[in-house]
Amino acid sequence: MSHTLELSPERLFPVDPATREIARQLYGLVKDLPIISPHGHVNPSLLVDDESFGNATELLLRWDHYIFRLLHADGVDITGLGVGGAPLTDPRAAWRTFCARWHLIEGTASALWLTHILVELLGVDIVPSAGTADDIYDRIQHRLDQPEFRPRALFDTFGIELMATTDDPLDDLAAHTTIRDQLELSGRVVPTWRPDKYCDLLSDGFAERIERLTGTVGGRPGHIGDYLKALEHSRQRFIAAGAISTDHGPRTPKTLDLSDRELEGLLAKGLAGNADATDAVAFEAGMLTRFAGMACQDGLVMTVHPSVARNHCQSALTAFGPDTGHDIPLRTEYTRAMQPLLNKYGTVPGFHLVLFTIDETVYSRELAPLAGFYPAVYVGAPWWFIDSPDAIGRHRSAVVEQAGFYRSSGFIDDTRAYLSIPARHDMSRRVDAAFLARYVVQGRLQQSAAERIIVDMTCTNPRNVFKLGG
Amino acid sequence: MSHTLELSPERLFPVDPATREIARQLYGLVKDLPIISPHGHVNPSLLVDDESFGNATELLLRWDHYIFRLLHADGVDITGLGVGGAPLTDPRAAWRTFCARWHLIEGTASALWLTHILVELLGVDIVPSAGTADDIYDRIQHRLDQPEFRPRALFDTFGIELMATTDDPLDDLAAHTTIRDQLELSGRVVPTWRPDKYCDLLSDGFAERIERLTGTVGGRPGHIGDYLKALEHSRQRFIAAGAISTDHGPRTPKTLDLSDRELEGLLAKGLAGNADATDAVAFEAGMLTRFAGMACQDGLVMTVHPSVARNHCQSALTAFGPDTGHDIPLRTEYTRAMQPLLNKYGTVPGFHLVLFTIDETVYSRELAPLAGFYPAVYVGAPWWFIDSPDAIGRHRSAVVEQAGFYRSSGFIDDTRAYLSIPARHDMSRRVDAAFLARYVVQGRLQQSAAERIIVDMTCTNPRNVFKLGG
Amino acid sequence: MSHTLELSPERLFPVDPATREIARQLYGLVKDLPIISPHGHVNPSLLVDDESFGNATELLLRWDHYIFRLLHADGVDITGLGVGGAPLTDPRAAWRTFCARWHLIEGTASALWLTHILVELLGVDIVPSAGTADDIYDRIQHRLDQPEFRPRALFDTFGIELMATTDDPLDDLAAHTTIRDQLELSGRVVPTWRPDKYCDLLSDGFAERIERLTGTVGGRPGHIGDYLKALEHSRQRFIAAGAISTDHGPRTPKTLDLSDRELEGLLAKGLAGNADATDAVAFEAGMLTRFAGMACQDGLVMTVHPSVARNHCQSALTAFGPDTGHDIPLRTEYTRAMQPLLNKYGTVPGFHLVLFTIDETVYSRELAPLAGFYPAVYVGAPWWFIDSPDAIGRHRSAVVEQAGFYRSSGFIDDTRAYLSIPARHDMSRRVDAAFLARYVVQGRLQQSAAERIIVDMTCTNPRNVFKLGG
Repeated sequence: MSHTLELSPERLFPVDPATREIARQLYGLVKDLPIISPHGHVNPSLLVDDESFGNATELLLRWDHYIFRLLHADGVDITGLGVGGAPLTDPRAAWRTFCARWHLIEGTASALWLTHILVELLGVDIVPSAGTADDIYDRIQHRLDQPEFRPRALFDTFGIELMATTDDPLDDLAAHTTIRDQLELSGRVVPTWRPDKYCDLLSDGFAERIERLTGTVGGRPGHIGDYLKALEHSRQRFIAAGAISTDHGPRTPKTLDLSDRELEGLLAKGLAGNADATDAVAFEAGMLTRFAGMACQDGLVMTVHPSVARNHCQSALTAFGPDTGHDIPLRTEYTRAMQPLLNKYGTVPGFHLVLFTIDETVYSRELAPLAGFYPAVYVGAPWWFIDSPDAIGRHRSAVVEQAGFYRSSGFIDDTRAYLSIPARHDMSRRVDAAFLARYVVQGRLQQSAAERIIVDMTCTNPRNVFKLGG
Repeated sequence: MSHTLELSPERLFPVDPATREIARQLYGLVKDLPIISPHGHVNPSLLVDDESFGNATELLLRWDHYIFRLLHADGVDITGLGVGGAPLTDPRAAWRTFCARWHLIEGTASALWLTHILVELLGVDIVPSAGTADDIYDRIQHRLDQPEFRPRALFDTFGIELMATTDDPLDDLAAHTTIRDQLELSGRVVPTWRPDKYCDLLSDGFAERIERLTGTVGGRPGHIGDYLKALEHSRQRFIAAGAISTDHGPRTPKTLDLSDRELEGLLAKGLAGNADATDAVAFEAGMLTRFAGMACQDGLVMTVHPSVARNHCQSALTAFGPDTGHDIPLRTEYTRAMQPLLNKYGTVPGFHLVLFTIDETVYSRELAPLAGFYPAVYVGAPWWFIDSPDAIGRHRSAVVEQAGFYRSSGFIDDTRAYLSIPARHDMSRRVDAAFLARYVVQGRLQQSAAERIIVDMTCTNPRNVFKLGG
Repeated sequence: MSHTLELSPERLFPVDPATREIARQLYGLVKDLPIISPHGHVNPSLLVDDESFGNATELLLRWDHYIFRLLHADGVDITGLGVGGAPLTDPRAAWRTFCARWHLIEGTASALWLTHILVELLGVDIVPSAGTADDIYDRIQHRLDQPEFRPRALFDTFGIELMATTDDPLDDLAAHTTIRDQLELSGRVVPTWRPDKYCDLLSDGFAERIERLTGTVGGRPGHIGDYLKALEHSRQRFIAAGAISTDHGPRTPKTLDLSDRELEGLLAKGLAGNADATDAVAFEAGMLTRFAGMACQDGLVMTVHPSVARNHCQSALTAFGPDTGHDIPLRTEYTRAMQPLLNKYGTVPGFHLVLFTIDETVYSRELAPLAGFYPAVYVGAPWWFIDSPDAIGRHRSAVVEQAGFYRSSGFIDDTRAYLSIPARHDMSRRVDAAFLARYVVQGRLQQSAAERIIVDMTCTNPRNVFKLGG
């Protein structure tokens, strides 16, 4: 078996030679364009603190739930990797555990990203295995110890034009203020307003959280007007800090047009701790419509990431905490669910609503038809489990024939793995090049059009959808 | 950027050269075969009146909801295009609006059809843009003013063997009588019996409509026997006028085996204006089974196009009326839904039931298994939003492995855009050639078999499924 | 038209020449590896009796519901083929009926398998048709009359390492005992414990069946402890006879964590004949969780094949009996359905739960995410209607990017058609080779890795998942 870790310059291109040649040309037009990342989960403190990434395990395993979930599935005790706040006592041993199981991730999107990171960023050119683990660990350590591998330096190296984080409506945004006022980065870093926990009647600590929220405007927790006012106030604060969008991850994409009185009744149940699942869904549904209304007023782009069963495994939630690889997708329905919101706001000029899914069946059946009519609606990029080459190809195939190339959000890396950002955007650009090249060879698109479109998909569309100017 | 509008003779063929060569050969066998269009929405008056198509906007934009919905999504005020009966005061300006946004439709099935129409029928060889809009408008006008571009002349040019329209059960079918008795077309034009509005308890004007219906047999609106008799009578009238099939677009594909008494109870609620959504679904479900029974008697082929949320956007319905681009598909279920009907009539010799879907998930899961067992059931062609090359390929891939090539309806253009008929059938033949060529190269089908099958898919199967003789 | 029946040595390989060459190399590594068949429906008496297969109709048509359902759909009276125990009075005439309709199965997976059987095993090299039916019938008869075409001889010829059958928990396993103790086969034949009829409160003869079951441990039918004990006892008996797994085909994949008292209440209703559909689903759901608990104790691998509407056509059930081609798939949901079971047992070391689906939508949305986290969960191979080349390719594409190559069960032939076993496994190996070759050419996998992976997919993974040792 070859021990050289290969990162083919032709990776993800079509297998047919003539189509590949066109894909290569198209990719060449966009490979060095700036990265626009309007939705992701990098912690802004990373840039403020600008500390070394520590070691290979800290950098690549501990926080990457795509990777450590596959180790968990293989029976590895992932507390040894420091998952969920467990002490990372022996990062080198953890790294060996992973390298010995490199075969588990072969073929996955994570393997592509990780190979890109190892070869391009970390200078590693050997295949991870039990025998090579220590050597690779040391090589990575050497790289991490260099100043040009600090987060800020990488930001510039990566060519990031804009990177959005995900933030709590009560966050003081101090890190963002520091970044804007004190750091001289080559691109923008902006917060994203994510109010989920303030709309989930069943979430732990809901009453206390709402009390803090309404306190920001001197209001009472049970008063719907104060509640809404505090949310609007928080949005204004985010806008002042550079926010471009809001993100929503409700249980379902259901929307309802509820009155203040109806919302207040549901809120009261949540505050009193006697809301049930039906109440929780109704309140989320009513608030989604309200958030759309606020977006029509203040101009923030609204993105929706619904229908995931969070923390599916109770014992893992207890052992490792949330976001540890066992959020499992659910079947989704948009056509009826979104109708109340869209009837109210779907044709309001300037309102942008990006709908994501991890249920691929809705692309051709619901999302492309909705985005092909409503000026507000854009089809979100493949997200999470379907953020991978074949799935992105299926997405394009399902959406473009109905809605063309201009009703989609553009690529979203959606990552907390800072180093994977260039790898993910590069993957997306390659898959788009492959898709367009096929259309050219099949006479469905002229090459000159494909050349314009791939630039638009990479930069123009996300700038337009997320109102980035430029 | 190239300004030449290209219509590649190799379009939609596989990218692999050897596979493409076989596809080219297969396509060559069917490209000039007659067009069989057993389901569509062209107005028969078009042929009776035989007037000029007016101008480019009238011809290509005003009535094509595939096109103008994408302009609407881009923020264009489509009343300027004359949509929904708005006066078309400045067709040239509307055409400019569209040409400046040609990029919006690139990659869609509409772009393929429109390019085919522009190049092949209208002699336009420049890419639409703001700068070329007037030139193209004038070229089209020149062509439309020629007598060989009148509807009847085109009918013969197109090589149409049969074209079905869609008609109201109370329509006098005068246009069809005129076409049959007075026009000398080279092919047949037949009506299709579409009773939806006579089964929808919640439709506007339901009571008045049923009164007119039952009046045709001297019956009372609330008497189920009279209601059914009037429907049967209307079917006989359609058969006499050449009808080959009935079309049904219920809310869901649900069927029920209801007694006369049960149906009469539901009908009474509809007539009294106090039916609810449950009643409406139940009545449609009961009537679908009754229509199957009628089909077993009178031999009309039954087609079902269910599960679309019609007129999704209330404000657009008010502004533009129905059929204006905001009918959005819904998730569909056939296995349980069709069981009552199929248990009663699914094995009756001579009964043909063609099931359409715009929820692609049911192809491999439900429709192919049903069509692979029940003699009555045929899988309908991809319809509406999924009437596009990649989607047709997915359909074949999902259906053929289970049900072969002989349990499908054949291509359905389903269009009210008369000029697009040849383009759509050509697209279908190319995609089928590509699909078959792959099977040949993969050793899954001998080439001699593929040569027979593509002819059968194009002509023999639709003739058999729709009982066209010949 | 060519009359030579071709079985291309390159069949199912990619169309692109360079990719095909790699697929050819990968396939070459596994084409002669032993067959591991851990789930199927061959009757073990076939090997004990070791009689001739009779004739072509008996061998290839009478028991193959994939084939005769398509004849039924074409209007053939399949009682003439001996379906459902009808006397097979004229097998030659039945064979003629089929050969005249060979076109009905072209393009299906059955055509691939049957061509493989005809050419490779039966020495038939002419395309079946009305004109060649008798000749082929005679050639097959000649082959069937030879001793090397008896079942036992074929078992060795096929290179079967392990073949599992499907058995009733009260079966005396005498055939298996005979096979193990008296036959000298080159591989293992093992029973599979399938308790469906002992958990279906609505099944015919339920009370009598449970009485027999509980009788095996001297217990009372209505006592839940006795019921569970008898099931456990039966599992032990199967384990002693070599069983490696249990198989479950519930109405839905729903699971519940019910108490003994709750289960006993439901069981009582079933025994008294007054259970309803809700009770039946609840009892199945509760028992699935119990079976998982038993598997954690005794180590049998648990496989689940849910969500099929069995015996969809009442008249066919009456005329032909069950398993006659009209079991139709249903939409499936796993994420919520499996949560109770997985929360209880999903992380128990050594527990293996293989989840099958015939609803392809759950691969990327639910099964791959579940298998990518829970150590217990493996994604089952495409099953039944989707056990075909394109569908297997879709399955790999949907699963591998998320869960890699090591969270799947390996191929399952799931067949009662003994002769088709090598054809089916060969198909699977070719499709996997094609899939991997694409990944290699696209730079997503190094060729050395692909060479290891295809061997693992063929042998290592099924040995691990089904705990076969070796």
